[in-house]
Amino acid sequence: MSEVAATGPAHRFGPLQRFASVIRLHPEKEAEYRALHAEAWPAVLAMIREVHIRNYSIFLRDGLLFSYFEYIGADFDADMARMADDPETRRWWALTDPCQQPVDTAAEGEWWAPMVEVFHSD
Amino acid sequence: MSEVAATGPAHRFGPLQRFASVIRLHPEKEAEYRALHAEAWPAVLAMIREVHIRNYSIFLRDGLLFSYFEYIGADFDADMARMADDPETRRWWALTDPCQQPVDTAAEGEWWAPMVEVFHSD
Repeated sequence: MSEVAATGPAHRFGPLQRFASVIRLHPEKEAEYRALHAEAWPAVLAMIREVHIRNYSIFLRDGLLFSYFEYIGADFDADMARMADDPETRRWWALTDPCQQPVDTAAEGEWWAPMVEVFHSD
Repeated sequence: MSEVAATGPAHRFGPLQRFASVIRLHPEKEAEYRALHAEAWPAVLAMIREVHIRNYSIFLRDGLLFSYFEYIGADFDADMARMADDPETRRWWALTDPCQQPVDTAAEGEWWAPMVEVFHSD
């Protein structure tokens, strides 16, 4: 993965793609999760932009987190691999992952579970 | 409501506000709901833009619909009242409402249930 990340096409751009996904938030971890995201680390935010993620929001209701972001890069897998290889991002995930739990229908090894876009209007 | 709609500030713009909400989709209505939204009526799409809604997407997973849109108007309540008063939109909702069911935690009379934004990065 570090190879892929190291050769990630940081300069290339593609058509905008929208991604939405869902994951559970442990009720007893809600305050901690919200506090972390209210003051997200600059290095984590910088990496999000570096891997061509834009307009990224996370919403909460009833113990479910919904994530929405737009990807403007040309190689999503390489960009995600690059982010997953970033030490600061890994330190951040070490704090946020224990707050979360994949939904029951998530695939083996899947964390945030992807949703299907059924409608869009610009 | 028609008074409000008729005097809606269609020309005014405010700062962008993000709205996310959730509702259930009846499993037996998924095909019908997706078919409707794959070919949404031009008059309905026109009204969505007229009431200052932009970048509107609906995503589906596990019988849950997640809605995300951006509002660029100056009077959200008046704009929503205006849309709710539009005959074509009401005809559309007469087809889509039976596909949906508010989540158990929805407030009395609430349809799409609002979510709380816990993170955003431009």
